[in-house]
Amino acid sequence: MLIVQKYGGTSVANLECIEKVAKRVAKTKEDGNSVVVVVSAMSGETNKLIEYAKHFSSSPKQREMDLLLSSGERVTSALLAIALTQMGHNAVAFSGRQAGIYTDEVHTKAHIARIDATRLEKELKDGNIVVVAGFQGITNFGDVSTLGRGGSDLSAVAIAGALKADICEIYTDVDGVYTTDPRVEPKARKLEMISYDEMLELASLGAKILQNRSVELAKKLNINLVTRNSFNENPGTLITKEENIMEKPLVSGIAIDKNQARVTLRGVTDKPGIAAEIFTTLAKENVNVDMIIQNVGHDGTTNLGFTVPENELDIAKIAIGKIEPANVVEYDSDIVKVSIVGVGMKSHSGVASRAFQTMAKEGINIEMISTSEIKISLVINAKYGELAVRALHKAYELDR
Amino acid sequence: MLIVQKYGGTSVANLECIEKVAKRVAKTKEDGNSVVVVVSAMSGETNKLIEYAKHFSSSPKQREMDLLLSSGERVTSALLAIALTQMGHNAVAFSGRQAGIYTDEVHTKAHIARIDATRLEKELKDGNIVVVAGFQGITNFGDVSTLGRGGSDLSAVAIAGALKADICEIYTDVDGVYTTDPRVEPKARKLEMISYDEMLELASLGAKILQNRSVELAKKLNINLVTRNSFNENPGTLITKEENIMEKPLVSGIAIDKNQARVTLRGVTDKPGIAAEIFTTLAKENVNVDMIIQNVGHDGTTNLGFTVPENELDIAKIAIGKIEPANVVEYDSDIVKVSIVGVGMKSHSGVASRAFQTMAKEGINIEMISTSEIKISLVINAKYGELAVRALHKAYELDR
Repeated sequence: MLIVQKYGGTSVANLECIEKVAKRVAKTKEDGNSVVVVVSAMSGETNKLIEYAKHFSSSPKQREMDLLLSSGERVTSALLAIALTQMGHNAVAFSGRQAGIYTDEVHTKAHIARIDATRLEKELKDGNIVVVAGFQGITNFGDVSTLGRGGSDLSAVAIAGALKADICEIYTDVDGVYTTDPRVEPKARKLEMISYDEMLELASLGAKILQNRSVELAKKLNINLVTRNSFNENPGTLITKEENIMEKPLVSGIAIDKNQARVTLRGVTDKPGIAAEIFTTLAKENVNVDMIIQNVGHDGTTNLGFTVPENELDIAKIAIGKIEPANVVEYDSDIVKVSIVGVGMKSHSGVASRAFQTMAKEGINIEMISTSEIKISLVINAKYGELAVRALHKAYELDR
Repeated sequence: MLIVQKYGGTSVANLECIEKVAKRVAKTKEDGNSVVVVVSAMSGETNKLIEYAKHFSSSPKQREMDLLLSSGERVTSALLAIALTQMGHNAVAFSGRQAGIYTDEVHTKAHIARIDATRLEKELKDGNIVVVAGFQGITNFGDVSTLGRGGSDLSAVAIAGALKADICEIYTDVDGVYTTDPRVEPKARKLEMISYDEMLELASLGAKILQNRSVELAKKLNINLVTRNSFNENPGTLITKEENIMEKPLVSGIAIDKNQARVTLRGVTDKPGIAAEIFTTLAKENVNVDMIIQNVGHDGTTNLGFTVPENELDIAKIAIGKIEPANVVEYDSDIVKVSIVGVGMKSHSGVASRAFQTMAKEGINIEMISTSEIKISLVINAKYGELAVRALHKAYELDR
């Protein structure tokens, strides 16, 4: 098998951790696999470099930030290759450029444009373990670029795609994807597998294990992703296409997003295009509007409700204040969004009604509802958030 | 003027130092010059990375060491460009690769093969301050290489050559080149200018301000080098071709090299090619033989004497022990080499005799003598080393 493994900052936090990673990589190679390893910077290094830059400027030049920040991953990749060589393996380290990762010119959050895998393919053919500095690439101008938050995951997935790897393992300090946050519900179970779409919903709902961009790329390239814990031998969670999952569960997980605030406009001004004006104004200020509900009140006036991230509420308030779109504008940051995610919903009815019954039984008022093919989201009062998660986890039998 | 400035590790030791360097660079630009800055890693960084590598292997792979070590200079170059930008200047940072520095494949001590200055020329034409990570380049295979000890000086000189710069300033923490070590002779004077050849002799004799490779390259490319102190505004010492020095001094400086040991072979075996065998054996062990004296004794047997670096004496002893080349072999590490350097010697007689008279006057026995066109070296008992330096400094009127 050709395996791409990615180790995050906590997995390569210090020299002892790098040594442990080297042993795991060596084992994978000794088991008869071809191995490409993608590494992050040692934890704390990137933040240190950012602080250095902030010493000189509150908004340092992004092109130079990329040259600065890309150094951390290079250090880890060189050290890991040195450690593997000492163990008797032929290991070769590469920067993003050397690995053939070409990006666009959006410095500090570049997108991978293409991968020229010629050099990596040659090294693998020669039987070498390939170690690649994650998070970075090179623009068509020859400048160093970085891929933004979660960038090393993206590097790993893109390389797995270019090399047609059998599997791409993402190592962190947790065992995999859970049916819900184990800190909220101790009965949460680790999932054996989950579809890309479910993972995307869970990720965007606050499960921090994988960034959406990486899952999206894996889905696009059809890469079997596995999230594993680098500190134990547990098998992790496979993220794959729906067709590969034989027994599709009705519900795979319950997510809770506490970083939400609700905006309610009552008696929206009777003016054509007012809704468009509101959302265009918010988009200009980079406020991410999520759930939107519109309905006509008893008196014929329109009511409009939507949620925004809590930390963007102040910007939203200022933007809305400028256009005076309604008689009454209410803001409520004392809410949470609880979501039920599962591909089984597509083919089963009654999934939503079980959620409503569960909320009713617990006496929790549902303030907003939004559904998609594989997700039901409920906005409720913040104080009931964890109770709702536990009740739904039980109602959908996720603890079994 | 087009000025290349190189700042060493002590000059960019920390963020405050980098800020001071930025001010000096900005001032040079504001005075109407085009500026290219070459920087070393922040002092301590390179040693830290070497220690990291040594944690895994006592002889880490050199290709990976280069990827590892090159990161320090990249950090400094990015930070300096960010600092300059904050001051209102357009500054752009480049890695060695981006600066177009191509080297051979001798990792960790590569030689610069050629410089493609296209990008740097474009940036200068656009009015930008160019900041380049020193010490590093790229091989024809696209791998990162480093230039070995003193590598950032080499980067600066080579870039100055490629850009046909008017001057290449090397900043350290000393004011320039002195007539002798001021710690030995407080009356030592800083030289205004010195020829490449004199500097080469002084450098190889222990003046640590510049590595020989950089001076050799400057001579080859005909670059006016200036060594200056980054912590003050003193003018420094110009190192230039002999033709540019109007008043050629008889003697420019007195150097003392305490890292020398003497090997004396008495009654060398009467065998053809025995001398060749001795020196070939030593060369194989990488022992640098310096002064060599051979003479025939009263009894017709041959005596052979030479010096080797003191820290290579043990290796030399083992090598010589294997071939038993003489009746008596003596080793003496209790010596120093004192050298008188000056281009004026070429056209003046009596320079050597003044040295001998001075030694005689001080009652110092000369054990070995070696002369070149611009240098006289004397091997004497170590305890007289500093006395000899002071006496010669006065005898050649260097204190005036």
